[in-house]
Amino acid sequence: MSDEAEHYRAKMQKRKAMQDRMVAENDREKGLLIVHTGNGKGKSTAAFGMALRSAGYGRRVAIIQFIKGAWDTGEQRAFRKFEEQIAFYPMGEGFTWDTQDKARDIAACQRAWKQAQDAMSDPEISLVILDEINIALRYKYLTCQDVLSGLAKRPTMQHVVATGRNAPADLIEAADLVTEMTLVKHPFHAGIKAQEGIEY
Amino acid sequence: MSDEAEHYRAKMQKRKAMQDRMVAENDREKGLLIVHTGNGKGKSTAAFGMALRSAGYGRRVAIIQFIKGAWDTGEQRAFRKFEEQIAFYPMGEGFTWDTQDKARDIAACQRAWKQAQDAMSDPEISLVILDEINIALRYKYLTCQDVLSGLAKRPTMQHVVATGRNAPADLIEAADLVTEMTLVKHPFHAGIKAQEGIEY
Repeated sequence: MSDEAEHYRAKMQKRKAMQDRMVAENDREKGLLIVHTGNGKGKSTAAFGMALRSAGYGRRVAIIQFIKGAWDTGEQRAFRKFEEQIAFYPMGEGFTWDTQDKARDIAACQRAWKQAQDAMSDPEISLVILDEINIALRYKYLTCQDVLSGLAKRPTMQHVVATGRNAPADLIEAADLVTEMTLVKHPFHAGIKAQEGIEY
Repeated sequence: MSDEAEHYRAKMQKRKAMQDRMVAENDREKGLLIVHTGNGKGKSTAAFGMALRSAGYGRRVAIIQFIKGAWDTGEQRAFRKFEEQIAFYPMGEGFTWDTQDKARDIAACQRAWKQAQDAMSDPEISLVILDEINIALRYKYLTCQDVLSGLAKRPTMQHVVATGRNAPADLIEAADLVTEMTLVKHPFHAGIKAQEGIEY
């Protein structure tokens, strides 16, 4: 082996030992509260990727959509392949500028929250996705206090993902894992429309 | 209708008109080069969510993994339900600190790039995911020039997602859509281990 290859190997052996030590020290398991926020793309899409991953292990997942709902999306069609495992509840009625009716938006969000509480009372469900719930919190269609208290009552090992822009500070404070999806560059600004399979 | 409800409706009607105008102005379609980078989570997971979405529409997808590979992950198991549509190529041999052999890592990346070029020459494939290719570029296992020239040759309507930390500036410059996943809070720092269905 050349000196350079030997040097590289020694460096990577050290790094491996450090990784192993970190993994050994992190031995707790618990249901995580995960937040995907920010103005970039991928908040819901990454949550759907987690649903897929959990379904791959034979686990059960509930997805409750607080805002979107009426559309027949690619993810919704794909989830039909996992109907024993992934329950998909499109409870929203569209964007606020589509419904133009605040009382109706609030009622839809509250029905969705009721559905979410049902999922969060079932220990057989290992992952609950509260899609766009951050928007419902932002518009005060739901109170952060009610949502945090509902989350606190869920089964110990159940993971929850809350998605949407402008996640409230109290939710971030309560979360175990928070990722901000940041917009760096978006094709809509270059005159390119939302495309099937990419945006929906 | 109350004054408040009427005011809300008028505001949302204006917003709806603005949205419709924006959608009408954005009428171009093209295959996008999408980059998911940053030190936060969700880069690969959101790409897998896009694979799912495309598969829901009956489209074909190729996923080439440049670094990870040997593991039997949840996503890999779930993709088996779409074997007619999603081709999954785990071409990596693990993290650099696992293989501890630079020449072997380079050879694995170059095999993966060959596989990627095959996928990018097939117009029937509407989405190609180059998972962790940014890492391969960062370590100079592949040159950015070769990758950009390969990307430029692909079918006009084919979308490509490149994932991984530290995406090179030239790749970001060439991209249509760039999202940075930013780490806000991570449970590993609180002594919690990587959990099935969440991290892998």
